[in-house]
Amino acid sequence: MVLALDSRRAYEVLAETLEARGIDLEWVKSELKAQEVETPSWGYADSGTRFGVFKQPGVPRNVFEKFEDAAHVHRMTGVCPSVAIHIPWDYLTDWRELKEFADDKGVRIGAVNPNVFEEQIYKLGSFGNEDPAIRQAALERHFECIQVMRDTGSKSLSCWYADGTNYPGQASFVRRKRSFEECLGQVYARLAGDERMFIEYKLFEPAFYHTDIADWGMATGFCRKLGERAKVLVDLGHHAQGVNIEHLVAWMLDEGTLGGFHFNNRKYADDDLTVSSINPYEVFLIYSELVEGKIRLGSGFQVDYLIDQSHNIKPKIEAMIQTLMNLQTAFAKALIVNRTRLAEAREGQDVVEAERTLVEAFNADVEPLLRQVRIEMDRPEDPLAAHRRSGYLEKAIAERSKRS
Amino acid sequence: MVLALDSRRAYEVLAETLEARGIDLEWVKSELKAQEVETPSWGYADSGTRFGVFKQPGVPRNVFEKFEDAAHVHRMTGVCPSVAIHIPWDYLTDWRELKEFADDKGVRIGAVNPNVFEEQIYKLGSFGNEDPAIRQAALERHFECIQVMRDTGSKSLSCWYADGTNYPGQASFVRRKRSFEECLGQVYARLAGDERMFIEYKLFEPAFYHTDIADWGMATGFCRKLGERAKVLVDLGHHAQGVNIEHLVAWMLDEGTLGGFHFNNRKYADDDLTVSSINPYEVFLIYSELVEGKIRLGSGFQVDYLIDQSHNIKPKIEAMIQTLMNLQTAFAKALIVNRTRLAEAREGQDVVEAERTLVEAFNADVEPLLRQVRIEMDRPEDPLAAHRRSGYLEKAIAERSKRS
Amino acid sequence: MVLALDSRRAYEVLAETLEARGIDLEWVKSELKAQEVETPSWGYADSGTRFGVFKQPGVPRNVFEKFEDAAHVHRMTGVCPSVAIHIPWDYLTDWRELKEFADDKGVRIGAVNPNVFEEQIYKLGSFGNEDPAIRQAALERHFECIQVMRDTGSKSLSCWYADGTNYPGQASFVRRKRSFEECLGQVYARLAGDERMFIEYKLFEPAFYHTDIADWGMATGFCRKLGERAKVLVDLGHHAQGVNIEHLVAWMLDEGTLGGFHFNNRKYADDDLTVSSINPYEVFLIYSELVEGKIRLGSGFQVDYLIDQSHNIKPKIEAMIQTLMNLQTAFAKALIVNRTRLAEAREGQDVVEAERTLVEAFNADVEPLLRQVRIEMDRPEDPLAAHRRSGYLEKAIAERSKRS
Amino acid sequence: MVLALDSRRAYEVLAETLEARGIDLEWVKSELKAQEVETPSWGYADSGTRFGVFKQPGVPRNVFEKFEDAAHVHRMTGVCPSVAIHIPWDYLTDWRELKEFADDKGVRIGAVNPNVFEEQIYKLGSFGNEDPAIRQAALERHFECIQVMRDTGSKSLSCWYADGTNYPGQASFVRRKRSFEECLGQVYARLAGDERMFIEYKLFEPAFYHTDIADWGMATGFCRKLGERAKVLVDLGHHAQGVNIEHLVAWMLDEGTLGGFHFNNRKYADDDLTVSSINPYEVFLIYSELVEGKIRLGSGFQVDYLIDQSHNIKPKIEAMIQTLMNLQTAFAKALIVNRTRLAEAREGQDVVEAERTLVEAFNADVEPLLRQVRIEMDRPEDPLAAHRRSGYLEKAIAERSKRS
Repeated sequence: MVLALDSRRAYEVLAETLEARGIDLEWVKSELKAQEVETPSWGYADSGTRFGVFKQPGVPRNVFEKFEDAAHVHRMTGVCPSVAIHIPWDYLTDWRELKEFADDKGVRIGAVNPNVFEEQIYKLGSFGNEDPAIRQAALERHFECIQVMRDTGSKSLSCWYADGTNYPGQASFVRRKRSFEECLGQVYARLAGDERMFIEYKLFEPAFYHTDIADWGMATGFCRKLGERAKVLVDLGHHAQGVNIEHLVAWMLDEGTLGGFHFNNRKYADDDLTVSSINPYEVFLIYSELVEGKIRLGSGFQVDYLIDQSHNIKPKIEAMIQTLMNLQTAFAKALIVNRTRLAEAREGQDVVEAERTLVEAFNADVEPLLRQVRIEMDRPEDPLAAHRRSGYLEKAIAERSKRS
Repeated sequence: MVLALDSRRAYEVLAETLEARGIDLEWVKSELKAQEVETPSWGYADSGTRFGVFKQPGVPRNVFEKFEDAAHVHRMTGVCPSVAIHIPWDYLTDWRELKEFADDKGVRIGAVNPNVFEEQIYKLGSFGNEDPAIRQAALERHFECIQVMRDTGSKSLSCWYADGTNYPGQASFVRRKRSFEECLGQVYARLAGDERMFIEYKLFEPAFYHTDIADWGMATGFCRKLGERAKVLVDLGHHAQGVNIEHLVAWMLDEGTLGGFHFNNRKYADDDLTVSSINPYEVFLIYSELVEGKIRLGSGFQVDYLIDQSHNIKPKIEAMIQTLMNLQTAFAKALIVNRTRLAEAREGQDVVEAERTLVEAFNADVEPLLRQVRIEMDRPEDPLAAHRRSGYLEKAIAERSKRS
Repeated sequence: MVLALDSRRAYEVLAETLEARGIDLEWVKSELKAQEVETPSWGYADSGTRFGVFKQPGVPRNVFEKFEDAAHVHRMTGVCPSVAIHIPWDYLTDWRELKEFADDKGVRIGAVNPNVFEEQIYKLGSFGNEDPAIRQAALERHFECIQVMRDTGSKSLSCWYADGTNYPGQASFVRRKRSFEECLGQVYARLAGDERMFIEYKLFEPAFYHTDIADWGMATGFCRKLGERAKVLVDLGHHAQGVNIEHLVAWMLDEGTLGGFHFNNRKYADDDLTVSSINPYEVFLIYSELVEGKIRLGSGFQVDYLIDQSHNIKPKIEAMIQTLMNLQTAFAKALIVNRTRLAEAREGQDVVEAERTLVEAFNADVEPLLRQVRIEMDRPEDPLAAHRRSGYLEKAIAERSKRS
Repeated sequence: MVLALDSRRAYEVLAETLEARGIDLEWVKSELKAQEVETPSWGYADSGTRFGVFKQPGVPRNVFEKFEDAAHVHRMTGVCPSVAIHIPWDYLTDWRELKEFADDKGVRIGAVNPNVFEEQIYKLGSFGNEDPAIRQAALERHFECIQVMRDTGSKSLSCWYADGTNYPGQASFVRRKRSFEECLGQVYARLAGDERMFIEYKLFEPAFYHTDIADWGMATGFCRKLGERAKVLVDLGHHAQGVNIEHLVAWMLDEGTLGGFHFNNRKYADDDLTVSSINPYEVFLIYSELVEGKIRLGSGFQVDYLIDQSHNIKPKIEAMIQTLMNLQTAFAKALIVNRTRLAEAREGQDVVEAERTLVEAFNADVEPLLRQVRIEMDRPEDPLAAHRRSGYLEKAIAERSKRS
């Protein structure tokens, strides 16, 4: 494949401009090719809000079909070879068949997520629950997930809790904190040396007065007590309005406590919208910190990128492809920042010049570059258009309605 | 019934203090006795969050049992003689039986709420939908509700819309605005001279980028175009953080556009928690504006009080009783403000004294007064304790599980 | 002047792409050339925060020097022919000299802003003050400004109030509302048929519990009572977090009540940062609504663009030029949206396609187009670089320190 | 002194009620008598906003007069024996005279606060500044303050920084973080074994894009690296909207990292209003965690209470007295919570009962109890009324205008 003519001309102009700025285009392209973003299995199935689930035709009916869709998205984009699973949603008694199926499709099983918030027993919390039997049930779920990791070759346990209270006075913050410490400690103790654990935080949950792991400071506190293999997971929608997320990212990168991301975007609350759909500049600024971190840390840089969005009104597969393209856009822009000039402007405390240097990269149209990269990766230059042309969804609709 | 001894002594001390401040205790008590707060039928049934519905034993299985519970709450408190219904949740082909049942239990049917947000067709909105067939379906639902009003003797149509968009660009704000104008106009045109329509606003909805009726200014804009019988409904949880709700209330009271309230409370988003549970002072300040408005407007003051809470983890009936007690507390405190001293302090621009006058009323313990009022209303002095003693829930559990 | 070679090639590629999308490039360019943005005289002088004023070398020492700087910025950019003045800051007993001076420099006097918040008498408010003498003083300031308008040929009175209260209970919301109505009415009554009045709103002010004109709904309420020539002014930093400003803009455009903008940007509060510096996508979305409004309303579209930023740490003139360039960028991107495709996607409720259409325009690098437009306007293609090369600031430093 | 008759009757009723609930009234009173709250010297002088300083008659003209006022407030209330000072505002070359003066008046010098944000050199930060000479200047200021501590007998260095950036890209978050680490380390190294250091955090500052110590997590991170004597200082106005402050307080108490408070209140931003004036329930909930912490930790509980308010429109001394009374109210309510019943309700996960137990204490009118405590402390039962009667301000106005 080669780039279409108009894209090629645009690419050439862009390449010249970037080279004139001293950007190493080969490095930029190799970084873009190396990016891996994990998609979640549930992101291919129907989802909804408190008002109900909005149904789409052709969505997967089981974990195999979810992996089928994920593999299709990876074929279109080339950047999402792994798929996160959630237990019990994706539970199987025997994982070999799925492993082979995934292998066969060119994807693999990624992070394992214990779900301890849907069953009635968790009404007042899981690890924060006052009732030891419920804490034990939640622990068992985690142990089960560690077993799934071993059965599937996954190396990450990704932990998020809908724990908290609804009313002042309802429970003791301190007792719940200590329960969490104790339970997380038991989970961590079971992890082997090459297995990692992510701890996610969230300021609020609809109807909550407090959440037990409210912010990165609390997640960090738990991680420090657990050990080196426990890291903080940042979900872009889990902060109060006005919080500077890129600052937190830079901070945690410098401390070595950043584990990864749940990408999405929000207007007001935890909206789980397509990443970059509300504030693309913020996503770019986060990626800019990641690029700086990568340059600083070299091979010591290890950050996992995961998608955590709820595509209620967009077609599932289109939304996933769009998300991956948006992440490529943000990453590409962060990679073409003239960091020499930026460092000089910062050193000279030239505020306008430093800002301009960043904005110049953000304002560049990197689409021609991304198209070229995709061609070089042997993928379609416009994955969304290619998907629409592919007939994949139509086939899924036909087969999945037939089979059900 | 007479007040228990210790409450009586506390009441006497309070009464003396208030009289020394020139408060007309008889007026305070008559206002408290006259307050009517409407409870919603769905508030007695199971509810939940996006994670699922949390089930409670003994909850109603149909609208009759919801009214049974509402009537029990009214027996305990004496302040909630009417019950809001939602269509289609509470839909009946023949309403006579329910009317008689309610009558018999000492309650009546209140506001009728058209629900146009749960069915699949409303995925992209109701009155704001681009598809005329869907707008027509939503209109029919409203017309049906107007018929229900006539069948049940209700005089209020209470309108809230989960309409909006999830992504920038998705739809034209202006086209949707005009669709709303057109549809609301058709609804209003069907209302008779003694029927009223409430328009509720809300800044955000999980996963939304914009809501079609985002704030009181938009609701007011629609009401002005519709006519005198369209009024704005304020839900305490539907504002951005930092908005001064009591200011909006005072403003709309002065303009004659305030229709009523959906009471609840929130910590971060639209949490639908028990009113006063997060910020009781704010609820008091709102009531203080209502009392000022009532004094100013006399019989021209017409504001409807409704409860719109989602008691996911509190027992349904206890939560409702607690809510009504909290509203009595806020109202009582607002009634005992020394308004003469407040006016003088304000006139003299004595900030400390004006504030102190308000705070003095807020800091008073009005529980003895409320107990006395309840006794005079022939209700138990502690409705929550009385409910717990009553055996009502145990009976409901037994009967409703038997019957199902 | 002609475009430098590399810009020319980039321009050609862009032009072809846009033409392939059916964008009328001549119309885009003519709109860009027609945009006028007013800069404020105080924006050229030293400014600061509550901690103090940060001083910069070479800043103007009087209104003539402020106009000199404004004229220089206009020479560099070509889009800011008018300068807003503030009374009493810019007060002159005779305005003829300034008018001629401005004329001579190629700029003119724009909106006149009465300042009623700095003097000690305004500690508890101006039009909202309980003291009639203080309200009268504020009125006189407004009348004086109307006289200045006539003396200078200005047609706009731009009104913002730091009025409000700091504590609950401090004053009556309703009394203050009525005071405002009365005073604004007196001001409006003095305006001639071709003179306009802007009313600005703001949710919060540091240390405030309420502001008298808290949101667009209140500003609209006042405007409706005043008459057709009173319009609402939107300052981008005056909303609660999470408010969808582009929605408000679309709404007011449709109602005919939008008067204009105070452009700036903010991270948390009312930060008065360079427009687009925090959320460029939001500024683009606002401009997109403006372009839609302009297409819909044609010559009936009248919206004033003003800058209201406080460049505390950026060099004054550089910051102003950067601001104007950012506005051109946002406007250009909004102009190249493929509105035919957008309308079709919206009609078909194709969320992904509608969003993509908008994003495609936002992602375009419009810098080559803007450079071409500037060349055609006979201005430097990079105004900031041109300013830096011009030696203007060095000269100002030399002269202004010499003369002082 | 004895309590006035009506207060005495109210007190007796309250005392009986509390005793019936098993509250140990003597313990409550002894805790109330032991509470010490530090007032800041600048809180007695004129203050203002970005619009200017609002002047009040009779305010102190130097640090001696500030201490005179602070001593008067302590005479009225009995709970504020120490006064925080700020360098350079309160700088003296010889501190012996002030120490003796304070001693003589019955107060002492409290926390020493280095001010590194007002001078022009700090325009781009102090410890976060790129310029080593500026960092050194800031360090010298801190060393000077440590010397002041030794000269005055103070044991606390209270550190807050207005450091941050205004624009994305302006500076490297990581470089600034490391600068802070390095500088704070140098300061800490100079502290003796019985000297403590407070590190305050703040999410935002008007016009800022990021602050270098944005939240409790960052302050904690610095403290952990410094050592045991560095503790986090919580200012109630320094959080994003929606943050649950009492949760943070409980967390830090359990970790042993909480140093103290800067008390105030806010509606939207960092408003520095009178504590409890906007949300008294939140202040009560914070105190409730403090009481729990105290019971849990016993003599290990060490938390400093300081006031950090800006009384722009309230008379300085009145506002300070009102603040101290509000804190007594919140503390008293937290002390009379029936913690046995609360613990039982929590253990049984009875949400309504647990909440009610807290609310019951909040709703109690503790004024009679506070009056009794003040009498027992040999202070006026209504300190604000006593101050107004005292003629202190009139005398200050007369003397201070005479002497100036």
